[in-house]
Amino acid sequence: MPEEISELKKRWEDTTLAATISRYPERREKFETGSGIPVDRLYTPEDVEIDYLRDLGFPGQYPYTRGVQPTMYRGRLWTMRQYAGYATAEESNRRYKYLLEQGQTGLSVAFDLPTQIGYDSDHPLAEGEVGKVGVAIDSLEDMEILFDGIPLDRVSTSMTINAPAAVLLAMYIAVARKQGVAVEKLRGTVQNDILKEYVARGTYIFPPRPSMRLITDIFAYCKDHLPHWNTISISGYHIREAGATAVQEVAFTLANAIAYVQAALDAGLDVDEFAPRLSFFFNAHNNLFEEVAKFRAARRLWARIMKERFGAQNPRSLMLRFHTQTAGCTLTAQQPDNNVVRVTLQALAAVLGGTQSLHTNSRDEALSLPTEASVQIALRTQQIIAHESGVADTVDPLAGSYFVERLTNEIEARAVDYIRRIDDMGGALAAIERGFIQQEIQNSAYAYQRAVEQKQQIVVGVNEFVVDEETPLRRLKVDPAVGQRQVERLRALKARRDNGRVASLLDRLEEAALGTDNLMPIILECVEAYCTLGEICDVLRGVFGEYQAPTL
Amino acid sequence: MPEEISELKKRWEDTTLAATISRYPERREKFETGSGIPVDRLYTPEDVEIDYLRDLGFPGQYPYTRGVQPTMYRGRLWTMRQYAGYATAEESNRRYKYLLEQGQTGLSVAFDLPTQIGYDSDHPLAEGEVGKVGVAIDSLEDMEILFDGIPLDRVSTSMTINAPAAVLLAMYIAVARKQGVAVEKLRGTVQNDILKEYVARGTYIFPPRPSMRLITDIFAYCKDHLPHWNTISISGYHIREAGATAVQEVAFTLANAIAYVQAALDAGLDVDEFAPRLSFFFNAHNNLFEEVAKFRAARRLWARIMKERFGAQNPRSLMLRFHTQTAGCTLTAQQPDNNVVRVTLQALAAVLGGTQSLHTNSRDEALSLPTEASVQIALRTQQIIAHESGVADTVDPLAGSYFVERLTNEIEARAVDYIRRIDDMGGALAAIERGFIQQEIQNSAYAYQRAVEQKQQIVVGVNEFVVDEETPLRRLKVDPAVGQRQVERLRALKARRDNGRVASLLDRLEEAALGTDNLMPIILECVEAYCTLGEICDVLRGVFGEYQAPTL
Repeated sequence: MPEEISELKKRWEDTTLAATISRYPERREKFETGSGIPVDRLYTPEDVEIDYLRDLGFPGQYPYTRGVQPTMYRGRLWTMRQYAGYATAEESNRRYKYLLEQGQTGLSVAFDLPTQIGYDSDHPLAEGEVGKVGVAIDSLEDMEILFDGIPLDRVSTSMTINAPAAVLLAMYIAVARKQGVAVEKLRGTVQNDILKEYVARGTYIFPPRPSMRLITDIFAYCKDHLPHWNTISISGYHIREAGATAVQEVAFTLANAIAYVQAALDAGLDVDEFAPRLSFFFNAHNNLFEEVAKFRAARRLWARIMKERFGAQNPRSLMLRFHTQTAGCTLTAQQPDNNVVRVTLQALAAVLGGTQSLHTNSRDEALSLPTEASVQIALRTQQIIAHESGVADTVDPLAGSYFVERLTNEIEARAVDYIRRIDDMGGALAAIERGFIQQEIQNSAYAYQRAVEQKQQIVVGVNEFVVDEETPLRRLKVDPAVGQRQVERLRALKARRDNGRVASLLDRLEEAALGTDNLMPIILECVEAYCTLGEICDVLRGVFGEYQAPTL
Repeated sequence: MPEEISELKKRWEDTTLAATISRYPERREKFETGSGIPVDRLYTPEDVEIDYLRDLGFPGQYPYTRGVQPTMYRGRLWTMRQYAGYATAEESNRRYKYLLEQGQTGLSVAFDLPTQIGYDSDHPLAEGEVGKVGVAIDSLEDMEILFDGIPLDRVSTSMTINAPAAVLLAMYIAVARKQGVAVEKLRGTVQNDILKEYVARGTYIFPPRPSMRLITDIFAYCKDHLPHWNTISISGYHIREAGATAVQEVAFTLANAIAYVQAALDAGLDVDEFAPRLSFFFNAHNNLFEEVAKFRAARRLWARIMKERFGAQNPRSLMLRFHTQTAGCTLTAQQPDNNVVRVTLQALAAVLGGTQSLHTNSRDEALSLPTEASVQIALRTQQIIAHESGVADTVDPLAGSYFVERLTNEIEARAVDYIRRIDDMGGALAAIERGFIQQEIQNSAYAYQRAVEQKQQIVVGVNEFVVDEETPLRRLKVDPAVGQRQVERLRALKARRDNGRVASLLDRLEEAALGTDNLMPIILECVEAYCTLGEICDVLRGVFGEYQAPTL
């Protein structure tokens, strides 16, 4: 039968197709995805090799192509988790409560830039940045306010924090203790993914080696104390936002993941002790089917890597569980309501790809911090997909599609190829140090920009379908007094706390950092004594040094 | 191999699945589509029978499951055709020019209610309705204004007009002649589908038999004079809006289509002379995959009916070409921005289903006539799907999906079953006369309403995720003076025209209506002499009588 299809396809090409194309040529000479995967006119059973049991299997079973849970969204919908946080802890606390009231099912904390790079709000480098892109957290006091009235045993919380992840995680644990919540019940994630910071995002503090130690310390600590905590969120999101293609997103994220697994093994951990708590974070970009295929390919490839390369035995070690955020870089400041359309399609891709949780961007994120009205639409987007579109009613609905299966195979094969090249360089860290990954991303970003300039890639409202007059959206502005208020609170705290105890704890932290013990317990002691984030990070800076980016 | 899949699926059910389900039951006891088709947890190759060559084939070839053109949107994107029209011809003309400037590629005229039921604006029944749900057209003069500055050889125009379709088509031809455009170049559609008016929409005038004659007169006239004109748009849209399911939409629309084909054959036309110009009009509703499957099933079933039942030979007679509009009935007055999300998903379904043209509803259509801002977003929705999502780059991308192919088979089989029952009653007209179709639709509408009331069906913002305070949208209101202005224009026209000629032409029309000749030529003469729509329809009412709906 495949031979017969092939023969008849040829005949169709020579007759029906040829007659049409000679009169009406196609819109482009070649069609391809953003990753440069050719998109053919027509896919038939003979255009894709599917060995069902080997390549797809059953959801909740190796190789997990069809999903990590056997019932997927028939059992429970994905977690609707809007990334939010700005200004002070009070302000952000109000936004979280608003989101929970609107039906959001998980929290996701955005920290301001000073917090992300381990500076207190009174640091000279924090000037003008306090509370701007996220909430300012200087000490446990801020964290207590941030989660005031939100019982931590009842929510799961994702924290986008990397270099100082251990400190913020310690603060979260301290808040739970103060609330009387059993620490082992805590659910959530710290991003804790430093490699992609070197590659794409830039909020690093320490050099790679001590950074990897902090990461594996979190792995080890959580294994014993926070069994439901995702100890890392290995992030393709920012790699993609920096201009990578879908294939590169998968390849570089999994290459980084391999580096973390190797580091943990090198630190003496057993793979099945920590691998079940690794989690991932991907981007949902514009090309609907390439994105769905990307999620499926990533899941299958990770399962194969964990099983074949690392010999993991626990099924949970093989499961790629991931959060998704729609692609911020695709939002346009022009005609911002168009972003609602983009976000809908991107969110759909994430759901069809089997995401475990999802942030849908607000239409105004390209312009400013999102207003409540915009955040509401973004959350409603998820709710409509969940409750009205029917796509959550069967597992992996696109399985079998000749096109989607072909794309899934292509993405996996091309990612495998990249990972092999990175292995040959000595792994992700080495590839980052020689600038290989950064360069590959830059090449893709450049190619995309050129396509937009030459209108090979249409961006609606930007290089086509432009209007002169724009409908204004109400913008949210952060009160410029936030920085001052935050500094005053910090000053008051420092006057009030037991500074003798602070000093002695920071000394003990320095000593521990010079040694090899797990740093989490002493960091926890520090935050509970109201040592500030900046103070803790300064001690670690003193011991570990600071990372300088290579010049490409 | 299928046996092996089956065996392993059983094992998966007994182990992985059973372990999960015992701890985490699914969200519902059973999942099904709006048509009541069961949705299983998982579809594998053994859950769907696909005989590729018999059931799918190649696009542009029988049975056209994969599309009517061999290159589909790689060759040319669907026509972006926003249904529009309100107030006076001047006002609507401005809106059309706005839409064309925004990148719309076809026109679609909405007429007001008096026009749709053949009354002039000065008729007592027109009071308060002039220009309200569409543009008011009383005479050729209004039609000239409506298309002023829009060269009719450069656009394709769809006109949602049924009972008086012949009159409006004649006016369109007359405008083309005045513009100096060759009539044989005209492209577009008149809806001209009276059966669904009896069933669902209610804008009928005459009883079935003379109505069918007017329809077949248009078929015959266009065959000779307007070879590129779609002579009818057989509409499932309104059947669906009235509460039908996807299966019923396909079944009742194709049953009506069979009745038209039979009527034309009975009138002595050859099937391959008129069938190539039949076109269809479907709804794009919420359930994404059921909708995609619906379009594919409708295409395949129509091809089979035309070939097997009517023995059509011309490939064009077998092709189901269709316009799609997103489902107005799914829009909510609450949180109107949510409608942008719904429309995006519905438009995507239409495109994945291979529509030839598309109207995307504006977010405020549940509240009022759409504003320019809302119309712009609706059109941008299509443009983003076309230019940014990548879904237009390969033909029929969902082909092969176990789930979608299974749904396609189910919808076809269930529609075939309905058509058989309607055949047994003596065809669509007989089924309508005994109220069968209306009753089936009412039952579905009732079941849906009950599901919403019992919250088995969530409608975001209506029975869940409700907010107290709504963000207000600017609403468009029709100037109440429109009716008066229209009446004055009509009065002036009647004073100015050659009323002797009008009277003698209306006499000739009456005579023709009493006979059996094609009515199009004399109607064209009437409109060119500025006989009004109401005058022409009154003559026909006198001869044909008026339809009275049966009491159910």
